[in-house]
Amino acid sequence: MSKAQKTSSARKRILETAEKLFYSEGIRSVGIDRVIAEAGVAKMTLYNHFSSKDELILEVLKYREEQFEAWIKQAMERNQSKGMSPLQAFFASIRSWFKKADYRGCSFINATAELADSRHAASQFSTEHKRRFREMLTDIIIKSEGPKAAAAAPAIHVLVEGAIVTSVCEGNAEAADIAEQAANILIAKAKRG
Amino acid sequence: MSKAQKTSSARKRILETAEKLFYSEGIRSVGIDRVIAEAGVAKMTLYNHFSSKDELILEVLKYREEQFEAWIKQAMERNQSKGMSPLQAFFASIRSWFKKADYRGCSFINATAELADSRHAASQFSTEHKRRFREMLTDIIIKSEGPKAAAAAPAIHVLVEGAIVTSVCEGNAEAADIAEQAANILIAKAKRG
Repeated sequence: MSKAQKTSSARKRILETAEKLFYSEGIRSVGIDRVIAEAGVAKMTLYNHFSSKDELILEVLKYREEQFEAWIKQAMERNQSKGMSPLQAFFASIRSWFKKADYRGCSFINATAELADSRHAASQFSTEHKRRFREMLTDIIIKSEGPKAAAAAPAIHVLVEGAIVTSVCEGNAEAADIAEQAANILIAKAKRG
Repeated sequence: MSKAQKTSSARKRILETAEKLFYSEGIRSVGIDRVIAEAGVAKMTLYNHFSSKDELILEVLKYREEQFEAWIKQAMERNQSKGMSPLQAFFASIRSWFKKADYRGCSFINATAELADSRHAASQFSTEHKRRFREMLTDIIIKSEGPKAAAAAPAIHVLVEGAIVTSVCEGNAEAADIAEQAANILIAKAKRG
């Protein structure tokens, strides 16, 4: 392994480890020392890659967004190959996400709640992530139901965010079904104009 | 003041102070010493009332629920006195909540996110709170739109939860309007059967 490869593999291991710990236990309760110990890197190595915990939090969220986008793309493709529309595939995918044993909601909502500081770079990145997520969902709606259905996209986005947090509080995936049924009613109404 | 009155006033001051600090800065980042200093009580006094920080967190959420219920009741009555239906008054009230300068979302969602432990008494209380909130909302829908509209209540609850978190991420109250318009479409559909 070249030095550059070693560097990038240490960086990736730190991000993977921190992402897993932050998601399962929370950003505040997991200290840098815990990340170092579980990633098996030297403290110096971590600080060579990330100048502070705040920077690590931001980079973990960027990493999480990449992982989430890759995961949902794959999950949707699998569902679409069974004959579902993109929107049906989207809801089937988030339903399976809510049912995961380690499901603890949305990392971006959780980070915003934990940081309690809308000016923090990680809170601002979370706001941008939500915008990108809403745009992705709007594209899915248009692909499945046509351009007139886009009028329902803002409400369907609010439904999906609500389903994400409700599933955490209730410990089940029922909110995904409720959101999907409501989305279909709103789309039918949007198509009628 | 009798001894019992003194005790209950210290307890109330601790709860008020902790509630304010936890809501604005987060449960994890505010320590017991900060609560003691800002409430102006002795450490012993706090521990006489609350055996641990975990117990304080739980009692703060119980206090928050009482405060929130009293606030929304009052805000709705004010809006209903202007001729709004209970449901219109509910949405007008949450819209004004989202617009408050210190708005930081739902204390129960935030606590669940921060504690990252579904077995924690405060997480379980948050789950029960959401059930009571959904029941309150269902009553409001029935009072405004009749019993057939109750079929739309689970989806309207998911919309409201989504509006609460979306407003935090976006820093504005637009999600309240989106949720209200969608709620009206879902109610019209529920009433048609």
